Amino acid sequence: MRKVDHIGIAVSNLDTALQFYRDVLGMEVTAIEEVPEQKIKAAIIPVGESKIELLEATSPESPVAKFIDSRGEGIHHIALQVSGLESILSHLAEKGVRLIDKEPRIGAGGNKIAFLHPKSTNGVLMELCEPEQAGDK
Amino acid sequence: MRKVDHIGIAVSNLDTALQFYRDVLGMEVTAIEEVPEQKIKAAIIPVGESKIELLEATSPESPVAKFIDSRGEGIHHIALQVSGLESILSHLAEKGVRLIDKEPRIGAGGNKIAFLHPKSTNGVLMELCEPEQAGDK
Repeated sequence: MRKVDHIGIAVSNLDTALQFYRDVLGMEVTAIEEVPEQKIKAAIIPVGESKIELLEATSPESPVAKFIDSRGEGIHHIALQVSGLESILSHLAEKGVRLIDKEPRIGAGGNKIAFLHPKSTNGVLMELCEPEQAGDK
Repeated sequence: MRKVDHIGIAVSNLDTALQFYRDVLGMEVTAIEEVPEQKIKAAIIPVGESKIELLEATSPESPVAKFIDSRGEGIHHIALQVSGLESILSHLAEKGVRLIDKEPRIGAGGNKIAFLHPKSTNGVLMELCEPEQAGDK
């Protein structure tokens, strides 16, 4: 585990959320990205070596919309940056950890990502991610 | 905002949680601390410049016990390390942000800490903290 890559926060409305995070807290938004696969729009806010990602659903079918429907706005997931994602997933599967993604898939920015199931992680939706450049060994 | 200081995860049982975070994920636990004021026991797990803190309630009156009763295990709060906590709290109060702690109080390790109310932060229980050594200017 190299670092906390990002903390994803589900928000109903990105503009309203930015009024707090950007305008009141004074944090800098470096990008606003659409992630069509997840049906979200994300505002990226660097904090040290990590990022806060404010996530707004762009469709009622988005996982973020469903999260807000059932729990309200709040922290949606955390992502830890790792080295050797494939090997880690194999290890976790062997240990009986429930994986949402059994194989890495490609996320925003070309990163390899995989989600673990909250049933295995004490209720935490946990993403493991590995930058595009890094090898798996 | 200097960095993500820690991510607090509410767990029902620390030993069970450590079977995943320490034994399966292979993360290193550097300390297990009692925080009597919050009625919790915390396992500290460094990740890059941040930490994961697994939080087990030591009393049914603990905020962590109440959180688990209403929402189940999961991410309880995030803490951002700041410089100049008093000034930031004044600024936030002026802007109408709801503060759980209007003045910093002393948390674990002698840090100055203050919690913001989730009503003002898109559902996120957010702690701002400042290390003991750092000044407020």
